[in-house]
Amino acid sequence: MNAVLPNRFASPEESIAYMRKVAIGRSGFSTWLDVEPVTVWEGTSELTLTLRPEMTQHHGYAHGAIVGLMADNACAWAGASVAGDVVTGGYTIDFLRPAKGERLRARGQVVKAGKRQVVVRADVWAESEGAEPVHVAVAQATIVPTGIVPS
Amino acid sequence: MNAVLPNRFASPEESIAYMRKVAIGRSGFSTWLDVEPVTVWEGTSELTLTLRPEMTQHHGYAHGAIVGLMADNACAWAGASVAGDVVTGGYTIDFLRPAKGERLRARGQVVKAGKRQVVVRADVWAESEGAEPVHVAVAQATIVPTGIVPS
Amino acid sequence: MNAVLPNRFASPEESIAYMRKVAIGRSGFSTWLDVEPVTVWEGTSELTLTLRPEMTQHHGYAHGAIVGLMADNACAWAGASVAGDVVTGGYTIDFLRPAKGERLRARGQVVKAGKRQVVVRADVWAESEGAEPVHVAVAQATIVPTGIVPS
Amino acid sequence: MNAVLPNRFASPEESIAYMRKVAIGRSGFSTWLDVEPVTVWEGTSELTLTLRPEMTQHHGYAHGAIVGLMADNACAWAGASVAGDVVTGGYTIDFLRPAKGERLRARGQVVKAGKRQVVVRADVWAESEGAEPVHVAVAQATIVPTGIVPS
Repeated sequence: MNAVLPNRFASPEESIAYMRKVAIGRSGFSTWLDVEPVTVWEGTSELTLTLRPEMTQHHGYAHGAIVGLMADNACAWAGASVAGDVVTGGYTIDFLRPAKGERLRARGQVVKAGKRQVVVRADVWAESEGAEPVHVAVAQATIVPTGIVPS
Repeated sequence: MNAVLPNRFASPEESIAYMRKVAIGRSGFSTWLDVEPVTVWEGTSELTLTLRPEMTQHHGYAHGAIVGLMADNACAWAGASVAGDVVTGGYTIDFLRPAKGERLRARGQVVKAGKRQVVVRADVWAESEGAEPVHVAVAQATIVPTGIVPS
Repeated sequence: MNAVLPNRFASPEESIAYMRKVAIGRSGFSTWLDVEPVTVWEGTSELTLTLRPEMTQHHGYAHGAIVGLMADNACAWAGASVAGDVVTGGYTIDFLRPAKGERLRARGQVVKAGKRQVVVRADVWAESEGAEPVHVAVAQATIVPTGIVPS
Repeated sequence: MNAVLPNRFASPEESIAYMRKVAIGRSGFSTWLDVEPVTVWEGTSELTLTLRPEMTQHHGYAHGAIVGLMADNACAWAGASVAGDVVTGGYTIDFLRPAKGERLRARGQVVKAGKRQVVVRADVWAESEGAEPVHVAVAQATIVPTGIVPS
């Protein structure tokens, strides 16, 4: 499950640069969110998001759609590290605890990289300065390679 | 599956007013999105969202998290119509087609209203003036009543 | 969502005969279960299963894996009606009530028939002579065409 | 995610004995399958199943419902280790590869043990003498404690 997968990018720096330019830079929503890529390499991903008041639901926690976005992005970016340009086919998310904190962190891990479909698992945590990260969601997704060469 | 369910609100107008005041008005994210409730009654829901450039992913379509938000909201609001204040326990979404259009429309339908858990299905469409609506996603969710009395 | 889909079989009788010969006849498990196909046509499916004591879980109801099999089969067969030979890519099932009865009935409905993937929804009911059918599970699946021509 | 969870059984041997007596012994289906519990302890589970010809689908592999049963059982038993008597609320399974082999092995790991709901992840492998195990499925489930005291 943790086998090192062949990369679609030449280096960890190049994959991060691609995410900034394409997945974030060309996406109005990811730009508005200001998602920060930390790692996109060998079938794994890590990203963070600083929470702002306009990202909350009616109890004051991070909105489920924002937590879902982090899980979805973690899966898509882990998939992209081995498959280049991708779209999300579908995902399942279970919310574990209220997403209360200053920042969300998500990590994705490719489970199986097929030609037609990449299966990925992700976890999302809520973090606050000086406190233990709180595990707020688990997800499982199928990511579909588009066949478009990253550029 | 389409049995009329007992409502938690006195009238369709009251449930819509509650959604505007609480689910949207107290949620920074729903306010930013400007989601519009159409129906929240007898275990069903309908809502629309006018798409803006800051809601797109890198191919220019509505971002999956926005489509997911609409499915999640449709499930939560259909659940709220019979269970009052709720949170989403988890959901599964499958994306059918690119969400390209001027507006998203989502509908939710409660399948089973249990005390501890409400199971709901939802559909999301992308709409453009003068064109047939395009079915872009299907979802299935478990919605958890919080026991908080709507006010 | 209920558009009539092009069939992969020449007639409803032919598709049923194929299910009996291949999906059931060549499957040790389906033969042991003795699943009965009712309809496999135009993106829909219906099948029944007479429950036996060796199909129960420890509370005496039909085992979740048996209910899951009915949902999975309903999805796969609805998919097969429009795509020929298929395998299940994955599915989500939510159990609504204990599956207590003499017989299970499942129905599947294709939501989107793509070349690489068919998305299907299914419902399962438990039935007993002289009683209303009880809705016991809802499912959503992705079915993958193998490209093998039915024969 | 791998925190040691409080057990509902006095020892690993006692939890295995309970699984044999109740989860398997009182379930017609699990008895027919002859599922073998290996570990049920501290929020984790492991079980094996020797494959027989009456467990196959039409391509000769283990039937998806059998793989699903192993994933479901792994989740339920991992949940039972910390919550006593349980039922499965729902699960999502993604199939990675054909389940071809002499034996299936499944492992479950509790992610969050709540009072009303336990979230669990599971993996299933197909094994054959002298060959590397093949990872055939990943699942994510919500397990519901019944409140019945194990006996």
